[in-house]
Amino acid sequence: MVGTVTKIAVVGLGSMGFGMATSLLESKIPTFGFDVNEENTKRFVEHGGKSASLADIAPELDALVVVVLNAAQTESVLFGKDGVVPLLKRGSLVMACATVPPGFAKDMASRCSDYGVEYLDAPISGGAAKAARGELTIMASGSASAFTKAGPILKAVSAKVFNLGDEAGPGSAMKAVNQLLAGVHIATMAEALTFGLTQGVSAEKFIEVIPECAGTSWMLENRAPHIAAGDYTPLSSVNIWPKDLGIVMEIARASGFSAPLTEAALQQFLAAVELGLGGEDDAAVAKVYAKVAKITLPPKG
Amino acid sequence: MVGTVTKIAVVGLGSMGFGMATSLLESKIPTFGFDVNEENTKRFVEHGGKSASLADIAPELDALVVVVLNAAQTESVLFGKDGVVPLLKRGSLVMACATVPPGFAKDMASRCSDYGVEYLDAPISGGAAKAARGELTIMASGSASAFTKAGPILKAVSAKVFNLGDEAGPGSAMKAVNQLLAGVHIATMAEALTFGLTQGVSAEKFIEVIPECAGTSWMLENRAPHIAAGDYTPLSSVNIWPKDLGIVMEIARASGFSAPLTEAALQQFLAAVELGLGGEDDAAVAKVYAKVAKITLPPKG
Repeated sequence: MVGTVTKIAVVGLGSMGFGMATSLLESKIPTFGFDVNEENTKRFVEHGGKSASLADIAPELDALVVVVLNAAQTESVLFGKDGVVPLLKRGSLVMACATVPPGFAKDMASRCSDYGVEYLDAPISGGAAKAARGELTIMASGSASAFTKAGPILKAVSAKVFNLGDEAGPGSAMKAVNQLLAGVHIATMAEALTFGLTQGVSAEKFIEVIPECAGTSWMLENRAPHIAAGDYTPLSSVNIWPKDLGIVMEIARASGFSAPLTEAALQQFLAAVELGLGGEDDAAVAKVYAKVAKITLPPKG
Repeated sequence: MVGTVTKIAVVGLGSMGFGMATSLLESKIPTFGFDVNEENTKRFVEHGGKSASLADIAPELDALVVVVLNAAQTESVLFGKDGVVPLLKRGSLVMACATVPPGFAKDMASRCSDYGVEYLDAPISGGAAKAARGELTIMASGSASAFTKAGPILKAVSAKVFNLGDEAGPGSAMKAVNQLLAGVHIATMAEALTFGLTQGVSAEKFIEVIPECAGTSWMLENRAPHIAAGDYTPLSSVNIWPKDLGIVMEIARASGFSAPLTEAALQQFLAAVELGLGGEDDAAVAKVYAKVAKITLPPKG
């Protein structure tokens, strides 16, 4: 079915979903966009996207891409009061991109199957900038048929697709592993940068030196410049991390797995939310460290 | 004085010092090697190095490179019972490479100065393989004169030298920042990889996918393959981390700085030592997680 996708809907036009939806448009794939925030939908239409009632358009859709915040929102979109799966035609595809527990992904796939709908467990990585450029990394698992049907979508939105297994679950498991690392690395960057400030290492020197050393990480190179610039405009917000690291801890506890670094990072993000920083860029977790150490972070500009 | 260095001694021929000493030989710089373990000294002589009594040779040295384990060993070499600084000629250079507190580096520089000896605070990063290739990163601080005198040495042993300030201290501060990151990243890699194993993500898939995602780090890409291969031959041992993260925590506490992720990582390395893994490669911290979670790590080969 590669190349024959004619109608796609993206539900969730936040920083990731919007970039994915516009990447689909750029690949000349007719795409409907939906978001609870009507401003987002309006902006998508201004970018050439289509808008409609999801219930009206659902029976015509070849694929539904769900890029919402979490498992609860995913379940609500698919099977809630106005759930769309019962309206989809048999043989259509749900591609689910939120970070969710692997068991939840399996459950959603099974329930979609009851309606003859295929399910691709397809968490995404790469951030808003890569989403906008159609260069995401996708950690996917599902049937060969689901992968085939998702082909044109995957091609439009991603630079790299990992096929992690022939059923839902492994994709979400790998995403949880990645989020564990990403969240801990952001908090560690904040801990190291603020520790450096107490020792006379400026944020500029930190950014100049550490990326050349064994202490670097992808998140450090991506986020530390936000702190040096004093710019906490949210590209990815603090609020993501109590959710995603919470999912990791939930899975860990259910498996009898002790994750002390994840737990420590989670506590720092929860403290950031407590300080009213939930809507700021996640690099703002540095403000938790700065407050405790009574130091001043670099000002804006 | 660039190019005029005629006699150098390297004290400490462990995995880092040995590589630095042989890199000096490869740059045609006559180099004496010293180590408490005579096997190391013998091996260095087999590689073309020179050996002598340090007390005998000290008055002729242009530079002394100290690549020992910590501050206590550095102080012992420089000012202990058989301390070498009082024997050095005025205008010679001490280049100190161990990870030490910034205040200790300042103190050593001051005491060297009493003997007319220059001091370069020059912690190193990059690991044994880069040391052997003369491609280390050096986080250095000291007087312009100390940098000039160290010129031929820095050229021989490093790919990158950062000049972090005109006195001893900032070099060691940056190294502490780097070690904080490196140690936490190793433990985080172990936490994520073993968490993945509990969710059906194999070590091979972990290594294939994560380096393409936002969750990657330098240490992850360097150390995770050791776990996948079941090979814990020590390139850098577990024992390094209670020492280096201990230094970070010591500095942090003295500055009223709270470092919960560093503390959590330190506890994991201390648990690894407790399990008798101190002499294994530092990736063996994964065995702490595996033991608690009652899972089996990949076997050797």
